[in-house]
Parts: sequence; C-alpha cells; structure tokens
Amino acid sequence: MRDHFELRHADAAGRIGELTVPRAGVTVETPALMPVINPNIETIPPVQLETEFGAQVLITNSYIIRSTPDLRERALDEGLHSMLDFSGAIVTDSGSFQLAEYGEIDVTTPEIIEFQYDIGSDVGTPVDIPTPPDVSREQAERDLATTEEALADAEAVDTGEMLVNAPVQGSTYPDLRERAARAAYDTDLDVFPVGAVVPLMNSYRYAEMIDVVAAAKRGLGADAPVHLFGAGHPMMFALAVAAGCDLFDSAAYALYARDDRYLTVRGTEHLDELEYLPCECPVCARHAPDDLRACDDAERERRLAEHNLHVSYGELRRVKQAIRRGNLLELVESRARGHPAMLDGYRALLDHAAALERSDPVSKDAFFYLSAESARRPEVRRHHARLDRLPVSGDVLLTEGKGGSDTYDHVWRVVPPFGPHPRELSDAYPLTAETPDRVDRAAQESAARGVARLVDANPDATVTLAHDDWDASALALVPDSVTLRNRVVDS
Amino acid sequence: MRDHFELRHADAAGRIGELTVPRAGVTVETPALMPVINPNIETIPPVQLETEFGAQVLITNSYIIRSTPDLRERALDEGLHSMLDFSGAIVTDSGSFQLAEYGEIDVTTPEIIEFQYDIGSDVGTPVDIPTPPDVSREQAERDLATTEEALADAEAVDTGEMLVNAPVQGSTYPDLRERAARAAYDTDLDVFPVGAVVPLMNSYRYAEMIDVVAAAKRGLGADAPVHLFGAGHPMMFALAVAAGCDLFDSAAYALYARDDRYLTVRGTEHLDELEYLPCECPVCARHAPDDLRACDDAERERRLAEHNLHVSYGELRRVKQAIRRGNLLELVESRARGHPAMLDGYRALLDHAAALERSDPVSKDAFFYLSAESARRPEVRRHHARLDRLPVSGDVLLTEGKGGSDTYDHVWRVVPPFGPHPRELSDAYPLTAETPDRVDRAAQESAARGVARLVDANPDATVTLAHDDWDASALALVPDSVTLRNRVVDS
Repeated sequence: MRDHFELRHADAAGRIGELTVPRAGVTVETPALMPVINPNIETIPPVQLETEFGAQVLITNSYIIRSTPDLRERALDEGLHSMLDFSGAIVTDSGSFQLAEYGEIDVTTPEIIEFQYDIGSDVGTPVDIPTPPDVSREQAERDLATTEEALADAEAVDTGEMLVNAPVQGSTYPDLRERAARAAYDTDLDVFPVGAVVPLMNSYRYAEMIDVVAAAKRGLGADAPVHLFGAGHPMMFALAVAAGCDLFDSAAYALYARDDRYLTVRGTEHLDELEYLPCECPVCARHAPDDLRACDDAERERRLAEHNLHVSYGELRRVKQAIRRGNLLELVESRARGHPAMLDGYRALLDHAAALERSDPVSKDAFFYLSAESARRPEVRRHHARLDRLPVSGDVLLTEGKGGSDTYDHVWRVVPPFGPHPRELSDAYPLTAETPDRVDRAAQESAARGVARLVDANPDATVTLAHDDWDASALALVPDSVTLRNRVVDS
Repeated sequence: MRDHFELRHADAAGRIGELTVPRAGVTVETPALMPVINPNIETIPPVQLETEFGAQVLITNSYIIRSTPDLRERALDEGLHSMLDFSGAIVTDSGSFQLAEYGEIDVTTPEIIEFQYDIGSDVGTPVDIPTPPDVSREQAERDLATTEEALADAEAVDTGEMLVNAPVQGSTYPDLRERAARAAYDTDLDVFPVGAVVPLMNSYRYAEMIDVVAAAKRGLGADAPVHLFGAGHPMMFALAVAAGCDLFDSAAYALYARDDRYLTVRGTEHLDELEYLPCECPVCARHAPDDLRACDDAERERRLAEHNLHVSYGELRRVKQAIRRGNLLELVESRARGHPAMLDGYRALLDHAAALERSDPVSKDAFFYLSAESARRPEVRRHHARLDRLPVSGDVLLTEGKGGSDTYDHVWRVVPPFGPHPRELSDAYPLTAETPDRVDRAAQESAARGVARLVDANPDATVTLAHDDWDASALALVPDSVTLRNRVVDS
C-alpha cells in the first residue's frame, strides 16, 4: 500500500486523490496539472501560477539546471523552491528527453537522482529510455531492460523524503507496457509516469494512447498515482482521467503561446484565424482578437499563455466536478466530439469497459444516454452481468410500457440500453437513466442483449417482449423462444 | 428585401448578420444576446452590460414601465436610453407575457406601440397571443387570428424609425407556425420573434422546439431576423443558431442567479452542489464555490449573474467563430452531448437537413465525422445529390484504397459517410473529411446509399465495390448488381 496517495472519489477509472509530497510539506489534489517551467525562459512566473491559477505543483528539468553553470550554482546554493519562487511541490525531470533527442547525456541515474535531491526537488526522476511508438519489439524490450536498471539504480539511492518517479515504457506494445508497469509497481518508487506518449498525441493517435494507458493501469495497483507524461492539452484531460491518469504536465501552455496557438477543450486554434475569442476566461472576456494581435510579442505570448492556463485549469475543475457528480463519462462524450481522433479515443476507452467497471461506483446521480457509444458504458455491462443473478420464472412480460398486467406471473420493465429489470429496481441507478425520445438502435440492441442474457439464465421462464418498434437489428438479437409484441404497431 | 438586416456569413442554417437599428443609430451583430432588464430590479447595471460584456442590445418590458407611475413618468420624460443608462439598441416587450399569465391587460396594440415609440424604444412589440404548446388546434387558430390582427394594428401605427416585432405563434402545430410566419413576413414589420417556446424549453422538449423553429423558418425569407423569444440558456445557443435563430433574450442570467443556479454550456448546476467551479470566467477563475457561498445574498447573486453572462457571451463568441470556420455543426455535436434532450434536438435538426443544405456553404474548412449523427449532415445529402450529375461508364472500381488499377476503366474512391467520388474531387470539401479510424456502420450505410445512388444514375456501368469490412447492414444497401470485395479479408 502506497500511503502517500489516497483515493477520495472515483468515476469510471478516473479518481480524485491526494498525493502527499512530504519534502514540500504539501498535499496535491489530483487530477493535477504541472506547468512545465523552463529554467531558462520564464513565460509566466511560478508565483503567478501559484497565486492566480492555484498551481499546487510544477515540473522543471534538473538536467538543464545541472548543465547550466549559473542555474546549477543557484539551485545548489539556495534550493529550487527559492530559485523558482514557488512554495508548492516541484517535480524534476532527469534528461531522458534530451537522451532520446540527442542520443546521449553526460549523467547517470544515481548522479541525477543525487543532484535532484541536493537541489531540493520534491519528486525526482531516473534516466529512463522513452522508447517511441512503432519501434521493433526487440528495441522496445532492450530499452525496457535499461529503464528497469535505471529504476533499480534510483531505488538504491538514499533519497530521504524525496519521492521518485518510476516511468513506465514499452512503446506501443500493450503487453510490454503492462509488464513494465508491474515491475515499476514492484519497486518502492512512488509516482508512475506513462512515458513517450507524446508522439501518439502529436499525431492524434488517441485510441492507441488509451490502449497504452489501459495496459499500464493493468500492471499498476489502484493506489499508484499515474502521470501521463507530456500530456498538457485540455482537450484530452477528461478522456485521460477517465482512463485512470492523475497527473498531467503542460509545456503546451507556453510553447503554444509562443507560436500564437490558442488552446480550447475542442482543439487548437491559431490566433491569426480567430475572428472572435471563443472562451470566457479573463483574457478573452476583456480582449478581442485584434487587441491581442496588436500586442508586442512578449505581451501577446504572456496573454495567450494565461488564456491557455485558464482553459487548462478550468477543464481540470470541470473534470473534478464531473467525478464528484459521477458524470465524467458524460463529459468525455462531449469532448469526444472535438475531433474524430478523440472519438476514436473514446471508442477505445469503451473497449476497456470491464476495467472501468471495477472502479466505477455502483450508484451515481444519473446516467445520460448521449450517443450510440453510451450503449457500451460500464454501467450497461454491469447491469447485464447482474441479470445472471436476478432469477425469474413462469410467464414473464418484459415491456417498455409502464402499466402492469394480470395475465403474466411477472411484469418487468425494459429500458434501452440496459434491458430488462424487475420494477423495484426502476428507481435505482442506472435504471433511472435519462434517455432521448429518439432511441437509437445501439440502445435497442444493447437492451436486446440484456433480454438474451435473462433468457439464458432462466431457461424455464416463458418470456414475452413488448417493445417500442425496435430496429430489426435489435430484434435479431432476441432469442427465438421469446414472443415479440410491438407496442407501437399494436396501439 | 428587408434592408435593415444583412447576412455576412452562413453555416448550416446559422448566420452572422448585421441588424441595423436606425433609431438607436447602432448596428447589432447577430447572433446576439439581449439581456432582459427588469426595470424594477437591477441585477447588473446596463452600463456594465455594455462596457464589460459588450452588450449591443437589451430588452425590457414597456408594459411594466407603463404600469409603474414613477417609471412611466421618467421614461416619457428622459427616454429609455437615459433612464436605463444604455447607448445600444433597446427592444421593448408589450405585455403579451402578462396577458398570457393573468388573462388580461389594460392596453391595446396601438396604445402600447405608441407608448413604446414615445419612450424611445428602438424595437417595439405588439400585443400578440403567446399560445402555449399542446392546446387544441381550434385554440391555436383562434389565437393566431388575434395575433395577426395585432400585427395589422401595429403596421397601421406610424412608428417612424422604430423597428417593430412581428411575433410568430401557432403553438406546436408546424403548419400553423409556417402559415403565421408567412403572414408575418408579408407585413412590413421588421423582426420575427418565434413566440411561446419557453414551455418547450423548460420541459426539455428541444426536438419540438427545433420543429417549431424549422416551421417558422419555412415561412420566412432568408432576410428575416429571427428572435427565439425567451431563449437564454447557453446550452442551446449553438443548436438554435444552426436552426436559423439570430436573436436570444436572457432573463435566465439574472433569474437563475437569484436562485443560486449556475449556467454552463452542458446544463444548469446549483451552487450548493458544486465542489469546484467548472468554468474559466473571471468570476470562477478568482473564486472557489465556498467563497461564493460565503457572500451575502446580493453579492452572491451579482457574481453568479456575472458568471452566467460570461458563459452566455462566451458561447455566442464560440458560435460566431464556428460559423466563420464552417464548423457550427461540429459545435452542435459537442453540445448535443450535454443532455439526452439536446441529442433529441440535434436529431430533430438533422430531420431538416434539406432545409439546412439550402443555406449551407458548398465549401468549408473541414468536415469532422463525430458520431452516427454526422452521417445525416446536409453535406452528405448534398454529395449524394451530386452523384446524379457525375456520369461514369464501363468497368468501375469503387474502393476505399488509395491505389489505382489497370483492370478497370475508372477507379473512384469511396469515403464513408459520403460514398463514391472521382479522384479529382478527393481534395475538395467535404471529401477532405476527417473521419475516425473506427468507422461506424452509420457512416458505412450512408456510403452504401451513395453507391446505390451512383448505380441508379448509371445503369450501364459495371460496378465493383472494394470496401474495408463493412457491416452487413451497409452491404445490404448496396445494389445486387455490384460486385463486392472485402479489402480487409482479401489482404
């Protein structure tokens, strides 16, 4: 049990947690965003991140600090918190990115971990190998062996109260990601970055990103805080949190601003192409696009970075509120409509519905049926599994209608996408679902699968299904032994 | 031609327009939100609406002013603009709401129109009958006759430069709405409120609201500015604009705030139930929910009203930016996932795809396939119609693959949801569509309908379809004369 991470609330595989960072003396509420601070270029001062945006944690690069004589001296002399003027938790990266980018770096894991400790980092990082997507399996395995050595090296250093990252690599091989996660979890390291997913995100391969995260989660205990390394675009926060990610780092807020790019929860816009500022943040409520275009470069970059941070922190608040209300997947439904690749990501997430179901609360506020995808949600799967444990016998009417009947031994309701259930469950989640009047066949088919499951579990019952004009594709899924009545045609 | 309303940009049936309001000497850009000012209760001062939120127009109630001696005297004496301290356009309502609510009012259309003129209103309103949904057809027709008399009475008054509203009623009878709209459009009145839809919105009957708007639009010329009377919730702005609405009025921002209700583009929250403020507006970026709960009643109401206005104006900017980019229906896709009833509204909008197609630009930036609903968009319909005018003969291969072939006279591409097209169109909108890798059967079925349409138009061609493992439901729509090849199974 990792006692520095406590789970408070869950929804799908998403959770609100508390990460205790003993060296900083702070508790970080997750999901959390860690703005990336380039120690050489200050876009938004850390103190402003803390006071204006409520940042509890940031991330900076110890390799750059170590390689820059001025910074190195100041960091060793006064410590990171004083140097950056930030009282929250400070995570330090190790130079792995530089290693991947330039082929070699002049520091070993024990050296960089000790340096991180010496400058007062709160969460250190070993030198892992960020294996990119699509490499050969041999390379992925070879790199993984090196990463596992780095984790062992890090474990061997006495780091006092400093937490240490245990990165999970494995390229686009789910089984390697799962194995790597299991090995990382078996160390006594503390935080689990899923690494080298940036190339997937940059090329909008969100479905594969979700498969990588799901594989890592299979190898990690529920008490493992998971950092989706390099993920800072607010359009995918809801999706990634629903898959079980707790920590994000954003260099995007600053890098995009430098390039006049403007983050939104539905994608990225370029300032040049905006006739209106499609946002309500303090920057966008006060300015028109022309105001920003008229600013000098530094001022424009600062304002765009502020906008990018506002929308990122705003989205995290929406995500956390959704977890509290139990409608995180409803938020993901909206976000999935930002880009076809996000829809792929959501569809991939639903491939892992069985895993989501394990952490998903049994009762929540309300279930909204919002698309054909909703029929594949974990709540539907759970209801179908429950049908095996709801025995029924004799003459049974399953009906979409509300009335009872004297001619049957039992009258159960049928609600797409869930399927049949005894009336006493009608007031219980998720059967209180709000569904559209224009029901789609995906919901009907899912309800039909529920009917089939009930018939399967109760072979002696004589079942009649009174449906509201279901699609032929749904009726084809109802077992032949069931008598069909179309309530719309009959009435 | 109504020369006080000019259309600048269009997307689906949505448009950006300029409403010239001569009496105020201002031009209002639509879609526009008119905050409702209760002359007896000031939540946010009009001058703040103008300077902080950029309000170009507001609406207040001339009947309340006329019935309140103090207000009446001041309004007649100094004029509405001075009394309210607002330099933009001021629209005045007539007391129709009070008539509907209390059964009678003590003023006629000529009297209230003259009063509105006298107090300096920029857009006046006759006393129409806001017939609620679901009344008998007889009542709806009787009420409509009275409304038409009111319009004739208003037309007869000399109102100088003041514009006058011509409300469109007809309850939930689409044919009556269409007839009423045609009659209103045939007057020389200026702005066309679609009336009495509030009960539909309050009970989340968005599909019927869309049907009512679509019916009214059929009776109105494209140059008619349309006001969705009583619609002020930002969750439905995108949907209503896509259906052709130009003006909204919001009493919600203030009324909801009084009740601790908090507007979002995905629905309404209650302050008591918020653990986080799920928004990036200046109020929510600066405060936590507990800060707001700790305020005294007036302060809390003011801040919530400010939040409600920020999110309303922010959403209108998003809607306008989407019209400029040609991705308004992509925004509607997101908003449709806020509530199952919004999904019904979007599905209803797509029932009117033929009407949307008439104003929809032939070329836009990109088409995003975001759900099974996307297959029903007007662009898909237009491509299918175009297939009738793209003759092809001989041996024709329709393929989802990119390569050519020597064995066929013609090789065309097939892209779900559009269907077949000659390669030279591949770089043209909408065939440049971004689609998910996980294609759904709705897209395949729509593409299959395109294949059928092509075969129908070219009965002499010999057609082979090389598809990527389409669903049986899609293949069933391909004519029997077409030879099928499954590229996934073959490869």
